[in-house]
Amino acid sequence: MNDELELFLERIVDVPPELLFKAWTTPRHLMPWFCPRPYRTIECQIDLRPGGKFFAQMADADGNKLPAVPGCYLEIVPDRKLIWTSALGPGYRPNDPASAPWFFTAVLTFEPHGNGGCRYTATAIHATRESAAAHEKMGFTQGWSIVLGQLVDYVKANPMT
Amino acid sequence: MNDELELFLERIVDVPPELLFKAWTTPRHLMPWFCPRPYRTIECQIDLRPGGKFFAQMADADGNKLPAVPGCYLEIVPDRKLIWTSALGPGYRPNDPASAPWFFTAVLTFEPHGNGGCRYTATAIHATRESAAAHEKMGFTQGWSIVLGQLVDYVKANPMT
Repeated sequence: MNDELELFLERIVDVPPELLFKAWTTPRHLMPWFCPRPYRTIECQIDLRPGGKFFAQMADADGNKLPAVPGCYLEIVPDRKLIWTSALGPGYRPNDPASAPWFFTAVLTFEPHGNGGCRYTATAIHATRESAAAHEKMGFTQGWSIVLGQLVDYVKANPMT
Repeated sequence: MNDELELFLERIVDVPPELLFKAWTTPRHLMPWFCPRPYRTIECQIDLRPGGKFFAQMADADGNKLPAVPGCYLEIVPDRKLIWTSALGPGYRPNDPASAPWFFTAVLTFEPHGNGGCRYTATAIHATRESAAAHEKMGFTQGWSIVLGQLVDYVKANPMT
């Protein structure tokens, strides 16, 4: 890990890894919690395999779409780990640097903790100090904490079938 | 495939997939043929796993180093397929767009052909038409043809142990 290029979030939550993983990898279970309200996720595409597409289109409260690039899954360990990047699109095609202010690779881990809980980590890996700092300034830690809370609430309130 | 974003080379050669794959994935067997002479590969680092480093430092006949960024392996199917990208470095960290004029993902396939031969394909996948065109203008097709010839000659002339 390189503290200047990575942003990191770790939380213990009282829902199991399997349900968090499912909520992260199933469009209908991802859209309800994936961005901080009042922003909403209005479209999600998931092709859960290395080289497959991960796309989530966010919109503000008025329905205006935020800029979005299709990302690419890199590693998938069912119920335990998920890695994707915005630097590549589907089929590992590099994304155009002009399409985003910066790219990052996200590493999520889901580790069983206690009785039915999970130790959840999210790491965002950047090319430069400047892009890591910009991502944090944009609200990475706060935003990803908020959506983790939304995610846990969603998983508790829904049958997740 | 997208003809405007991809460059593609296909050749039938009379050496088996296993030896071509070995030459592509072993530094001491890669350095002798990897760039068109009189350019030379003066350093090579290979960590052959998804997320692992692929780095080859080229130099001109006078020993001047060419610009180089560390790449990242994405998929490895022993003896058959190799995918890496220059858009990411080791550990899937995005590379700084300022570090290269463009990034590409390389897909190599090695398919048994006839009696001890191989159908070899190399695909370079780009973000934009402009970068694909620039890569071709720089000599992709000619350069990769030349080094494939050097590769075949090398494999035939050496024990590959």
